[in-house]
Amino acid sequence: MNSLYVIKIGGNIIDDPAELESFLKDFSQLEGYKILVHGGGKIATKLAKDLGIESELIEGRRVTDAESLKVVAMVYAGLINKNIVASLQSNNCNAIGLAGADGNIIQAVKRPLKTIADGRQIDYGFVGDLDDSSVDSEAIHKLLNAGFVPVFSAITHDGQGQLLNTNADTIASVIAVSMSGYYQTSLVYCFEKNGVLRDVDDETSIIKSIDPVKYKELKEDGVIHSGMIPKLDNAFEAISKGLNEVCIGRADALPELKQKTFGTRLKSKE
Amino acid sequence: MNSLYVIKIGGNIIDDPAELESFLKDFSQLEGYKILVHGGGKIATKLAKDLGIESELIEGRRVTDAESLKVVAMVYAGLINKNIVASLQSNNCNAIGLAGADGNIIQAVKRPLKTIADGRQIDYGFVGDLDDSSVDSEAIHKLLNAGFVPVFSAITHDGQGQLLNTNADTIASVIAVSMSGYYQTSLVYCFEKNGVLRDVDDETSIIKSIDPVKYKELKEDGVIHSGMIPKLDNAFEAISKGLNEVCIGRADALPELKQKTFGTRLKSKE
Repeated sequence: MNSLYVIKIGGNIIDDPAELESFLKDFSQLEGYKILVHGGGKIATKLAKDLGIESELIEGRRVTDAESLKVVAMVYAGLINKNIVASLQSNNCNAIGLAGADGNIIQAVKRPLKTIADGRQIDYGFVGDLDDSSVDSEAIHKLLNAGFVPVFSAITHDGQGQLLNTNADTIASVIAVSMSGYYQTSLVYCFEKNGVLRDVDDETSIIKSIDPVKYKELKEDGVIHSGMIPKLDNAFEAISKGLNEVCIGRADALPELKQKTFGTRLKSKE
Repeated sequence: MNSLYVIKIGGNIIDDPAELESFLKDFSQLEGYKILVHGGGKIATKLAKDLGIESELIEGRRVTDAESLKVVAMVYAGLINKNIVASLQSNNCNAIGLAGADGNIIQAVKRPLKTIADGRQIDYGFVGDLDDSSVDSEAIHKLLNAGFVPVFSAITHDGQGQLLNTNADTIASVIAVSMSGYYQTSLVYCFEKNGVLRDVDDETSIIKSIDPVKYKELKEDGVIHSGMIPKLDNAFEAISKGLNEVCIGRADALPELKQKTFGTRLKSKE
């Protein structure tokens, strides 16, 4: 079985042109099969503001109305995606930029109304949720086999002609799980820290490797807490569904992936 | 040799949602290998205006500065391209939306400075020009073979990381010529008239078929004049490079393509 890396980058890298350029160079040099998933960053927020489109936040989650959807489709699937692809091509990486509608590769379901704490029913608008059957892994396999490096923006569709805004972390995870039937697949989350840290203020305190037993201990000891718990819960769920490993670390440490010294590695067994 | 249609639609269709939807349904039902190339329409012009970006026109040609390029990349490669793809997917057409950077399929050259009538040297900015070697026909062939229907926006790149704005008519023509080695290729220009007309005010006066000999006669008789001449010169040049035929007609007449009753057909020999 060949190995495959599914690498996700977020807004903090996209918003820094020099860091993005450097990351894309490293990504280009990574040998073997690979897929890039990118989030949005502040460009969409700024464009919405310049156009006078106000985006509503409910319990920290953004509501995507029709006008906001146009903005994210333009910025994520157009501006950011095509600039990333052009940059990868200039680094001899045969990138092909995709949204979920392309080749019907990621079909989502529009998020149903949700009841929040105060009893209100909330419509998050044009937001797409994914499940294990959302990704057409055969289509991705065909593209990889044809020599392309897929680069996904976080725009999906519902199969009925409607584009949907979807969380990039989730896209990366669902793609990685779906590809694990074809490849020994690693999911890599690039974020602003060196990895999962023993001490959040000490970037040298990286926990090199975590399996489910150790994860349970680290939670009980209070070492892993708050925002990291849903992230790691998701990661271990993906591993339980057949993913080889999940790596979490800084984008500029990507060259260390092959040396297995990149950030924190989550595996089913240490 | 299989047959292939390369179909180009322009702004007049894209700006009319009902007409676009109807066209995409017809396009979906067209059997066999096909490629769609779309222009921009008024959405980009409106977005630029809303953002206070002024676009300069010199001798009828738009200058694409850095801010205007962002607008067209967002609107053409993001908003329009992904909505067309989502709509085609809902019609069971396995569309994949692409810009020229994707898979390095269309590599352009930034337009050099041009000297205009009054002696000024004009920089058209981030505009890409194409030649016979710009298109990677093998990459398109791979995508067609894998069951995808490529949908191209009019954004290309220079191979050095720079996106470029490129004329959609030219993209369609250059793709069609480059594919004529693999397929018996027809280029279809959808525009607002029924075809090449004997009398521009009479939509029933369609000239059904034109070969180079007849074209020469029609020009000498003044039947074909002004704006149609460069269009048809281009078409016959493409035919001389191996293209099977060029069809010109109304988008809503697309179902007539297979019956060979669509608009005007230009061929090397009647």
